[in-house]
Amino acid sequence: MFLARVSETGVDGPEARIVVAAESAGPWFDLRRAEAERLRAGGASQAAARRLAAALVPSSLAATLDSGPAFREVVSAALAARPEVARLAGEPEFLAPVDAPAYRDFMAFERHFSFGAKVRGIPVPPVLYEQPVSYFGNHHALLGPGQEVPWPHYSDHLDYELELGIVLARETRDVTPETALDHVLGLTILNDFSARDIQLREMQGGLGPSKGKHFGTAIGPWIATLDELPPSGLRMRARVNGEPWADADSAEMIWTIGELVAWAAAAEPLPAGTVLGTGTANEGSAIELGRRLRPGDEVELEVDLLGTLRNRLGPRGSGWEPEPRRPTEAPTTSPKEG
Amino acid sequence: MFLARVSETGVDGPEARIVVAAESAGPWFDLRRAEAERLRAGGASQAAARRLAAALVPSSLAATLDSGPAFREVVSAALAARPEVARLAGEPEFLAPVDAPAYRDFMAFERHFSFGAKVRGIPVPPVLYEQPVSYFGNHHALLGPGQEVPWPHYSDHLDYELELGIVLARETRDVTPETALDHVLGLTILNDFSARDIQLREMQGGLGPSKGKHFGTAIGPWIATLDELPPSGLRMRARVNGEPWADADSAEMIWTIGELVAWAAAAEPLPAGTVLGTGTANEGSAIELGRRLRPGDEVELEVDLLGTLRNRLGPRGSGWEPEPRRPTEAPTTSPKEG
Repeated sequence: MFLARVSETGVDGPEARIVVAAESAGPWFDLRRAEAERLRAGGASQAAARRLAAALVPSSLAATLDSGPAFREVVSAALAARPEVARLAGEPEFLAPVDAPAYRDFMAFERHFSFGAKVRGIPVPPVLYEQPVSYFGNHHALLGPGQEVPWPHYSDHLDYELELGIVLARETRDVTPETALDHVLGLTILNDFSARDIQLREMQGGLGPSKGKHFGTAIGPWIATLDELPPSGLRMRARVNGEPWADADSAEMIWTIGELVAWAAAAEPLPAGTVLGTGTANEGSAIELGRRLRPGDEVELEVDLLGTLRNRLGPRGSGWEPEPRRPTEAPTTSPKEG
Repeated sequence: MFLARVSETGVDGPEARIVVAAESAGPWFDLRRAEAERLRAGGASQAAARRLAAALVPSSLAATLDSGPAFREVVSAALAARPEVARLAGEPEFLAPVDAPAYRDFMAFERHFSFGAKVRGIPVPPVLYEQPVSYFGNHHALLGPGQEVPWPHYSDHLDYELELGIVLARETRDVTPETALDHVLGLTILNDFSARDIQLREMQGGLGPSKGKHFGTAIGPWIATLDELPPSGLRMRARVNGEPWADADSAEMIWTIGELVAWAAAAEPLPAGTVLGTGTANEGSAIELGRRLRPGDEVELEVDLLGTLRNRLGPRGSGWEPEPRRPTEAPTTSPKEG
């Protein structure tokens, strides 16, 4: 099954609606309308059917997933009935498929992280083979399909990153790679836009990428549940202004999806709707090709069964930047380096 | 003014309630009950007064802050009226004062980050003087006062970090250090518990601390608004099992609160209720003293006007850990390091 969120215009203006489809090509069905129809047919009044359907299927996919079995029942019923009244007319206007309450990004592709080490002028750190290493992104900066990527004022060098996003179906903590898959709703495409200049500079501070990543990450257009996916890898492609730049395969990951989820959730809670990025596919960024993006460029990521995620880079913004400090003293605990 | 959240037992069980006080010693007033009383006195029915007060003051401080001017009006009215019916009886059971929708932690104390560089065996990275460097923590793992800190199964070495937490009052994006202060609700104490062994190992991967930090961060017991704070620094102390281990001063930060907020919000959105950590105060962790914590130890952080944040370390848990991989190929883009 396929899940997405689309924008529809209601009495109060545009609102996000959760939609489902049996095939990625559609037709798509509005989940709340389908559920209201089912409740009405079962004997609820029109007002009660709408009220209950709104509580079961709010605009937030994360909140909808939180209801657990009730969510699964609503989805199954909608796909079984496919009521005409809930069928989307025209071309869906896809939004980010999930309003993720958290976003963590891994490095699971070996040639990509080996290239990263080369750029930093160091040997490949052995820890990258010992555990799936990751950082937290800013889930408040998630962008949907078609949304313009804001070019941060503090960067000259934006890049794309071709990734898969793993969406959690329920709250997850301390699972094994085997049981982890029961906690996964499905996969979507993820573009972890990166400001390379500041990213490389700030990573020297030891706390990882931050301002180099947190300005925008695109996801979408939809989520395919795990049962839709082939046991082999998914072909992952990137195009810039229509020109093919990357052609990779998810089978090249050195960690499984179950391992990524299990390590993400080891000793810490991850709520329903959390997005985990796999890290960039091999050769899945412009820097690996020695190429550069410019304002106005359109980046398209296409993955088998997951559709095409298209975003254009906006014009460079303006804003405040910090004034450097001078070391104010010889730090007493580290005299040589002060 | 002082803001906190306390646990009270209602008809459906324990619930988080937002409370306010004019003095940090109390008395504390239940904000929702005070607002319902005000609406009732103004002519609303009992049922409408409760319904509106619940919508204005839910359990979530982040959601309450989101209403903007309405929040400030409700708080002002409660502090002006201090209705007896809303006054807390007995000792408040403080929770994390804010259900933060995001948490970012900086490094603003020079001797602490210089020590960190020494531990990593490198000179102090110049970038730490060029910009406030930070990472995102897991806001779903925030702990309140008195809550036990879960000891992750993958670590032998837990530590505390004595910090201030800056709480944002409203959605913030692209502000200057001057205007940033209008976006700050106030300060609270923050203990960024850290698993040093895995933190140091994973930081070699370049993406910063992750599993070494994301298992638990304590905040509380309350938030003091900026107008309550002296222009000079705040004295910050740590005790372990009652013994003084740290005595620092927030005036030693090399970045101002306004600069930390402005850089955090540069080119990215931070919602109301976001918590920004200042980073560890100088000598504000056990590793800097050459000391170690053990399961069962109690860590108390005390800061002028902000109270005392007390947490005990739990027993070590058990769980899954990744199986190391062997490099599977000589990476084509980085042959020398493969």
